[in-house]
Amino acid sequence: MTIKSILPASLLLLGAGTLLAADEPSEYAKFEASAEYVKFALNNLWILISAALVFLMHLGFASLESGLCQRKNTVNILFKNCFIIAMGVLTYYFVGFNTHYPGDRGVDPSAWNGFLSIGGMAAAEPGTAANFTSEYNAGYTYWSDFIFQAMFAATAATIVSGAVAERVKLTSFLIFATLLVAFAYPIAGSWHWGTGFLADKGFYDFAGSTVVHAFGGFAALACVIVLGPRRGKYTKDGLKPILPSNLPLATIGAFLLFLGWFGFNGGSVLSADAQGVSTVFVTTTLAACAGALACMATSWIVLKKPDLSMTLNGFLAGLVGITAGADAISPTMSIVAGGVAGVIVVFSILFFDKIKIDDPVGAISVHGVCGIWGTLAVAFFGGASFSSQLIGIITVCAFAFIFSFALFFLLKLIMGVRVDEKEEHEGLDVAEHGAPAYNE
Amino acid sequence: MTIKSILPASLLLLGAGTLLAADEPSEYAKFEASAEYVKFALNNLWILISAALVFLMHLGFASLESGLCQRKNTVNILFKNCFIIAMGVLTYYFVGFNTHYPGDRGVDPSAWNGFLSIGGMAAAEPGTAANFTSEYNAGYTYWSDFIFQAMFAATAATIVSGAVAERVKLTSFLIFATLLVAFAYPIAGSWHWGTGFLADKGFYDFAGSTVVHAFGGFAALACVIVLGPRRGKYTKDGLKPILPSNLPLATIGAFLLFLGWFGFNGGSVLSADAQGVSTVFVTTTLAACAGALACMATSWIVLKKPDLSMTLNGFLAGLVGITAGADAISPTMSIVAGGVAGVIVVFSILFFDKIKIDDPVGAISVHGVCGIWGTLAVAFFGGASFSSQLIGIITVCAFAFIFSFALFFLLKLIMGVRVDEKEEHEGLDVAEHGAPAYNE
Amino acid sequence: MTIKSILPASLLLLGAGTLLAADEPSEYAKFEASAEYVKFALNNLWILISAALVFLMHLGFASLESGLCQRKNTVNILFKNCFIIAMGVLTYYFVGFNTHYPGDRGVDPSAWNGFLSIGGMAAAEPGTAANFTSEYNAGYTYWSDFIFQAMFAATAATIVSGAVAERVKLTSFLIFATLLVAFAYPIAGSWHWGTGFLADKGFYDFAGSTVVHAFGGFAALACVIVLGPRRGKYTKDGLKPILPSNLPLATIGAFLLFLGWFGFNGGSVLSADAQGVSTVFVTTTLAACAGALACMATSWIVLKKPDLSMTLNGFLAGLVGITAGADAISPTMSIVAGGVAGVIVVFSILFFDKIKIDDPVGAISVHGVCGIWGTLAVAFFGGASFSSQLIGIITVCAFAFIFSFALFFLLKLIMGVRVDEKEEHEGLDVAEHGAPAYNE
Repeated sequence: MTIKSILPASLLLLGAGTLLAADEPSEYAKFEASAEYVKFALNNLWILISAALVFLMHLGFASLESGLCQRKNTVNILFKNCFIIAMGVLTYYFVGFNTHYPGDRGVDPSAWNGFLSIGGMAAAEPGTAANFTSEYNAGYTYWSDFIFQAMFAATAATIVSGAVAERVKLTSFLIFATLLVAFAYPIAGSWHWGTGFLADKGFYDFAGSTVVHAFGGFAALACVIVLGPRRGKYTKDGLKPILPSNLPLATIGAFLLFLGWFGFNGGSVLSADAQGVSTVFVTTTLAACAGALACMATSWIVLKKPDLSMTLNGFLAGLVGITAGADAISPTMSIVAGGVAGVIVVFSILFFDKIKIDDPVGAISVHGVCGIWGTLAVAFFGGASFSSQLIGIITVCAFAFIFSFALFFLLKLIMGVRVDEKEEHEGLDVAEHGAPAYNE
Repeated sequence: MTIKSILPASLLLLGAGTLLAADEPSEYAKFEASAEYVKFALNNLWILISAALVFLMHLGFASLESGLCQRKNTVNILFKNCFIIAMGVLTYYFVGFNTHYPGDRGVDPSAWNGFLSIGGMAAAEPGTAANFTSEYNAGYTYWSDFIFQAMFAATAATIVSGAVAERVKLTSFLIFATLLVAFAYPIAGSWHWGTGFLADKGFYDFAGSTVVHAFGGFAALACVIVLGPRRGKYTKDGLKPILPSNLPLATIGAFLLFLGWFGFNGGSVLSADAQGVSTVFVTTTLAACAGALACMATSWIVLKKPDLSMTLNGFLAGLVGITAGADAISPTMSIVAGGVAGVIVVFSILFFDKIKIDDPVGAISVHGVCGIWGTLAVAFFGGASFSSQLIGIITVCAFAFIFSFALFFLLKLIMGVRVDEKEEHEGLDVAEHGAPAYNE
Repeated sequence: MTIKSILPASLLLLGAGTLLAADEPSEYAKFEASAEYVKFALNNLWILISAALVFLMHLGFASLESGLCQRKNTVNILFKNCFIIAMGVLTYYFVGFNTHYPGDRGVDPSAWNGFLSIGGMAAAEPGTAANFTSEYNAGYTYWSDFIFQAMFAATAATIVSGAVAERVKLTSFLIFATLLVAFAYPIAGSWHWGTGFLADKGFYDFAGSTVVHAFGGFAALACVIVLGPRRGKYTKDGLKPILPSNLPLATIGAFLLFLGWFGFNGGSVLSADAQGVSTVFVTTTLAACAGALACMATSWIVLKKPDLSMTLNGFLAGLVGITAGADAISPTMSIVAGGVAGVIVVFSILFFDKIKIDDPVGAISVHGVCGIWGTLAVAFFGGASFSSQLIGIITVCAFAFIFSFALFFLLKLIMGVRVDEKEEHEGLDVAEHGAPAYNE
């Protein structure tokens, strides 16, 4: 376990304002007209644009979730999503980033043990020249690295947010989300991206089918089990579907998620390398489109009608399905990977409804189940080792599930995690926020 | 006619996973710090970002159309738009790309005849080093080329989607859209962009006022003629306007289309050339703004009220009006080109309503009529030959119209293209999809 | 005062079409593979992408404002926002750009006096090679400079639009907005960015906390004072809150504004310098997130409920609060700057309601008050001179207030600035535009 010194951070607190003086050229990185430096600036710019695209995914999630849920719980969902991105970035600054990347054990064997890391403040890193040049990394500055990863971090909690929507108690969820994002997500991520034990085992997960999506999906599953289904959905007379309140909003959400994925996967190339980024754009798009078409066809056959919300989940299923192997799977095989995900997601959503796991937006299926599929797909189509992939899936999903179950169960004991029957019936907007989302 | 071998594709199917091995540096394109390579990577990145922006136009179309139509047909419109982008990308992969660009007759005279091309799978191209370096093109890799053009391809069907909304039969439309995008669009496009006979004639259409927009507009016109107007619009007592259901949604759509046009036109520079891209951004923006103001003023005078949906179409009219000449028309003249388009679109929409061509979103006027205007504007303000422009317009629009009329008429005979009266009255959402778009 | 010759512009009008010939390589800027040129093209591309992001802020404003206002005034708000961006870009072309940047007095002391500048048409600048190469600027072409700044220009009027919503007379507002954007905004801006007297005084305002946001906020304050509050809000029985009509729409607006700010602040680096842009992305994001959390907590304590629209304003408050010092304040201190803004905005909104200044969207607080705070924050945390900052704030805000008060008061005398009681009650959509925003 690595506890980083926070001394330099306090210096930064005192010395603020000296980072970049107003009219001087930047101190560290003279923007020279050398090919070396222009290459670095180009790479760095792409990582920042990708960060902006991943940021937009949070609007995508907010729109998708509030569109798929009931009108009376809209404000609550939007509020949670605003909290998640704000809290996610700040906790990542204070503890997540250095937990996620605790140091390279290959370079410094004493850096950490490969299993458990707790880091300090991002600003605790010395603000030397290296942080703004390719000395830190060929693809980005220290701060571009931070902001790109910070945008990812909040995603785990957002996935949970959708699954527990319409009956979760606000304060309990905010506490849960904060601890999940601040500690659980970066610890699990460090196993793979932080040179942890999964990196040793050859686990391959390009942009995070497992370490982001399945992590979030299994955290969501644990919470839903603790929380129970929405009242009135699973009745003695069978399943009573709860209709989505605003499908244009949900469609905006799904398309913005698709768009954001160009940054999620495209930025994970970690440079603007022409081969890498163009390959990833192609596989990502083909998988998403195949996922949508396969899901559309499957749900049309199974449900006997052309279903829009299933189709939206089909895009996302395809995207989650290619995330682990976007740089390793050929274009043609990415169609297969995405298409299979689009079929899986339909049956998975139906299955969870059958066993009365109530997930209003299908998050467990899209992110959890298709995240597993996407990780295995790299073994089938991208040359990764099946057993390595399996070890990664099991450890990360088990950790996400156990951490979330334990924490959410504890919160249930201490303060409750669910609104009471009257509030659920009335809707969380009026009950918790004092006013509905739509007014005259 | 060129039938490309699909043998290499099957090899790719088998050899999948070798494209990019997990932890190795990319095989073909070592991202060297040479000015040559950085230039290529920069160009390539801009094409990919442009592809993402053009992708977003599909959300723009979906939002604009569903906002301008009636509430009861919203799911149907969104569903069609989801299908179109998914189908559009995949058909472009399987047949469209190599039909669109069947080979350079200047280099290889046996490549094709200049009139009719049918190509094979995108992945059938050998996956050699050339595809990932500037050997393929100075501005982009093979796969960036594919994905940028794939995002364009679905546009033609999206334009039709708006015009036939609120009464078209879903399955018939899906079949029509697939054949239009898979075959008609890339064949017509090959005449201009694929070194076909229009390229020989000096036809100038920078980003596709004719080969994308007017093509879509005239396909739409043909379908609307076959389909007939919505019931209850043209009555004995004159025109009964059908009000748009959600103008904020339509506004989101129009602004996203405007944004996406920076990629549509800006990416058509086919590199990140500073002069080219900055010129195109300026002319595109000025034309759009002039179109909106001119349309706003014209419709205010003619309709005696400040009309929002007209104004939104004014932005789009200006954008379509500059698309053919965005790199060839001066900033000041782009204001004229856009402004004239903004006036034209008002009278065109009124004209089509007068002759009872019912186009719920004004797609025929915006894309068809202003597409023609934009193509001619390059002759007036950008130095192109008037007769060449006219030949391009006539052949492309005639082909789009005849192909669409024949195919849609055939579909009408075989399976019908229109929902029955009861379904139209009830709305397609409940009739075809089983549930409305907005619920409690 | 500088009156630029418009002769070259008329030449351009005649010589249109020669700017870029169709099939020739671009005349001025051969896109050479020199590191020098690639650096320039990269910088230029980032400015253009930033312009596109700032463009999107106009959709953000339109969505936020229409979401926070009443349903019956939605069309009116959207119409105003469409007008503002279209008019803003065109007036900037015809007069704003050369007023904003009247020439460098350091280079040519006769260029202007530092206080009052009125410029001519953007196209009046000679279209020489220099305009498309780094001879004009190391970071962008002449036209990229124009389009980036043009997207900023309309912002001032958009801020006012939100504050006067729901009772302003459309035509009066359109006239006011045009004169504000065409003359007042670029004149005030020239004092700082156009080498005017504030530049001499060492006033530091990186991307415009004062010269864009506080300028707009104080123009809004003046208009609201002239206009008076919405009927029925401040009653004998105390304040009667008017509920927002569509909170998902408002949330979309706030997130798009946040996204656009990556271009607003990020593009203000004026190059793709790796240190500059990554620093600005980090400080901008941290301040926004801190603003949201601080505002969420403060409003929860003060208003006794978790308030979504306050939280959305918290993001914006944080963003406005870091805009002046995004490149000069350290990451940790940007959290403080944003967090303080998030606290201020709550009390400011409550304060203006107490003194019966009715601002339906909180624009005066977000842009005016937090704009002042952001400008002072550079003195506290970024090394700027407190007295210089104060002088800049006072002169710009006073000018915005006096200009707006005088002009709006004049309009009130001549034609009235407010709809009558019946129209306000009925809603502006039906009264001024003939139809509501949402229909069946």
